[in-house]
Amino acid sequence: MSMEMEVEKRNHRKLGQQLELFMSMEEAPGMPFFLPKGMVIRNELEHLWKQRHQQVGYQEIKTPIMMKQELWEQSGHWEHYHENMYFSHVDEQNYAIRPMNCPGAVLIFNSKRRSYRELPIRFAELGLVHRHELSGSLNGLLRVRSFTQDDAHLFVREDQIESEIAKVLDLIDEFYSTFGFSYKMELSTRPEDFMGSVEIWDRAESALEKVLKIKELPYQINQGDGAFYGPKIDFHILDSLGRSWQCGTVQLDFQMPEKFHCQYIGEDNKPHRPIMIHRAIYGSIERFMAILIEHFAGDFPFWLAPVQAKILPISDAHLSYAYQMKRDLELAGFRIDVDDRVEKVGLKIREAEKQKVPYMLIIGDQEVQNESAALRKHQVGNVGQMSIQDIIARFSEEKDNKE
Amino acid sequence: MSMEMEVEKRNHRKLGQQLELFMSMEEAPGMPFFLPKGMVIRNELEHLWKQRHQQVGYQEIKTPIMMKQELWEQSGHWEHYHENMYFSHVDEQNYAIRPMNCPGAVLIFNSKRRSYRELPIRFAELGLVHRHELSGSLNGLLRVRSFTQDDAHLFVREDQIESEIAKVLDLIDEFYSTFGFSYKMELSTRPEDFMGSVEIWDRAESALEKVLKIKELPYQINQGDGAFYGPKIDFHILDSLGRSWQCGTVQLDFQMPEKFHCQYIGEDNKPHRPIMIHRAIYGSIERFMAILIEHFAGDFPFWLAPVQAKILPISDAHLSYAYQMKRDLELAGFRIDVDDRVEKVGLKIREAEKQKVPYMLIIGDQEVQNESAALRKHQVGNVGQMSIQDIIARFSEEKDNKE
Repeated sequence: MSMEMEVEKRNHRKLGQQLELFMSMEEAPGMPFFLPKGMVIRNELEHLWKQRHQQVGYQEIKTPIMMKQELWEQSGHWEHYHENMYFSHVDEQNYAIRPMNCPGAVLIFNSKRRSYRELPIRFAELGLVHRHELSGSLNGLLRVRSFTQDDAHLFVREDQIESEIAKVLDLIDEFYSTFGFSYKMELSTRPEDFMGSVEIWDRAESALEKVLKIKELPYQINQGDGAFYGPKIDFHILDSLGRSWQCGTVQLDFQMPEKFHCQYIGEDNKPHRPIMIHRAIYGSIERFMAILIEHFAGDFPFWLAPVQAKILPISDAHLSYAYQMKRDLELAGFRIDVDDRVEKVGLKIREAEKQKVPYMLIIGDQEVQNESAALRKHQVGNVGQMSIQDIIARFSEEKDNKE
Repeated sequence: MSMEMEVEKRNHRKLGQQLELFMSMEEAPGMPFFLPKGMVIRNELEHLWKQRHQQVGYQEIKTPIMMKQELWEQSGHWEHYHENMYFSHVDEQNYAIRPMNCPGAVLIFNSKRRSYRELPIRFAELGLVHRHELSGSLNGLLRVRSFTQDDAHLFVREDQIESEIAKVLDLIDEFYSTFGFSYKMELSTRPEDFMGSVEIWDRAESALEKVLKIKELPYQINQGDGAFYGPKIDFHILDSLGRSWQCGTVQLDFQMPEKFHCQYIGEDNKPHRPIMIHRAIYGSIERFMAILIEHFAGDFPFWLAPVQAKILPISDAHLSYAYQMKRDLELAGFRIDVDDRVEKVGLKIREAEKQKVPYMLIIGDQEVQNESAALRKHQVGNVGQMSIQDIIARFSEEKDNKE
């Protein structure tokens, strides 16, 4: 297959429609609608994310999606970012719909007295943000106006910068490996429109560079492409066609803590300014899903597949056994459909293959009698007759295997 | 204790601050910030909800939180509800920030040809909405301007109305029982500002009433308090002080499907208009959490407690064993803290009691030697020395017991 055909076959908008994952509507261009099957994938991604972040010491928070405009003037977003922001009015005051989640995390940090013993504090937020994009540039889930960042803001002491950044790099590596992605890194440095002093920027840039060198990781330098508040390491994942997509980011920020007068009480009993690390792994759930769809060409691994197995009864006589099997497999934690239409089983198989369901379970007289199913694997073919217990064992093993 | 003192002791704003569950800020009045411990409770409520809805045949969706104003004119929200709505501008067009989730669900229903065989279709959405409230009426999590409805929209055939409403009543009953709430029901009828014809309203009201009568459930009639698009049954839960709070709702709607030209192809191969059921169980996650806080006076049942057990080492010599125990218990799926401060164990106990942590695990020389902990239950006292295995068994049992 030519590269062009291969790319077209994987087009996430086409597959999104064919597999009923999401849709775009004229009523809200660039603000995607998640259909039930797309929502299953989204829930799996969010579940994995919440679970792992809890395990490695992040604390989840949730902050408002709109706040008074003054806050965004204080944070610098108004000055540096207002052309991409949407606004509203509440009580005759100007509110901004958030384009980033950082100010909310800062307000929570500042809501109580913090001690050096508490640091690093790692606030994680699956934060819904809105950013304006020109209507001509919108593209399915890949370029949108509303999306959810898998965001986190770390408040750290100066002596914790390097170890915390190293841990973030490890976590990002672990997540990308889960999907079989390799990736490359870029260090983005001070942009023209920057906040703060050149000295602090230099310090921040060399801190990031130091971690990359200690870990002996290869990276490129992307001159002048940092965020307005600090330098960053961007992660570009490489998909199965070798295309690169920017997803994760780790940003070091000395500015926001200054603007918001963040402080903690040090061992010396005096107030100190923490440093903030902004970071995301998926980047945006929407964009990451678009990339997954294209990467897997819709053939999702078992744990992500919206429907994990489809039961195909050969005739109406096998329907009640088919429903019994559905209940048993659902109780065991799997997502199961029954194709109960009055159609030839050959047609049912062809359609299940088109829907890219990982497994088909064909039920005829023999299977009902033996309390089994004829297992067929997507793109592979017949596996053989198996008992429900063996099917559950096989599915369980495949579900745990996330790579 | 006098009723007044009892009410004050349970004030959810006070407990919310004391237990670090949520906060309100001047930067966004009425739009609460969830702190890490409040977020744990919220996640448990959402997890239970998603799990049960999937099991009983709902399909989860996610739709945009703002859409073009025309859509809200078409739905009737503009005419009947615009004073409570916030607005924005995108591409120089007016957008409304959604006060309800229904139009999004309708757009998904209308996105493909539907057959009578697919119905009932049950779309569930944990939908973030914004509604204006006067600033003087705002009250913690109880009366807010931004909240998440545990919403669902059912598209049903006329012959399915009663069985679907009966199933919704069962599900609501099951959820409220989980928290030990009794409740009462009110049937709210045609308001002055209604949409549609009197005949259709009469039909809808008698359909709701019929289900209540068949199930032999007691209810009151709330004349003229229906939604502008249809009559409803409201659920008022009764908390431990006997106070009543409106939470769940089931609303029958013949209007929205008309306004949006919804249809399905019937067995007769002709287009038919489905009926919509709007329903929520918690009502709003925020409000329900406020009620839970007051109902339990902050003494959450084990499965909801933000920290399920606190390990209290008597001295520094017991710290490494304390951390080992924390890891073991976390691996077994529990939420554990260690109080590693250099303080007397008596003080640590008093503070853990104030934080209403269900269990304390006290670690001294003997416990380290026996690989055990001295278990202490909140508000009860010492339970005795127990091995880690026995602690895990006890916690597992208590976690499964949701009542």
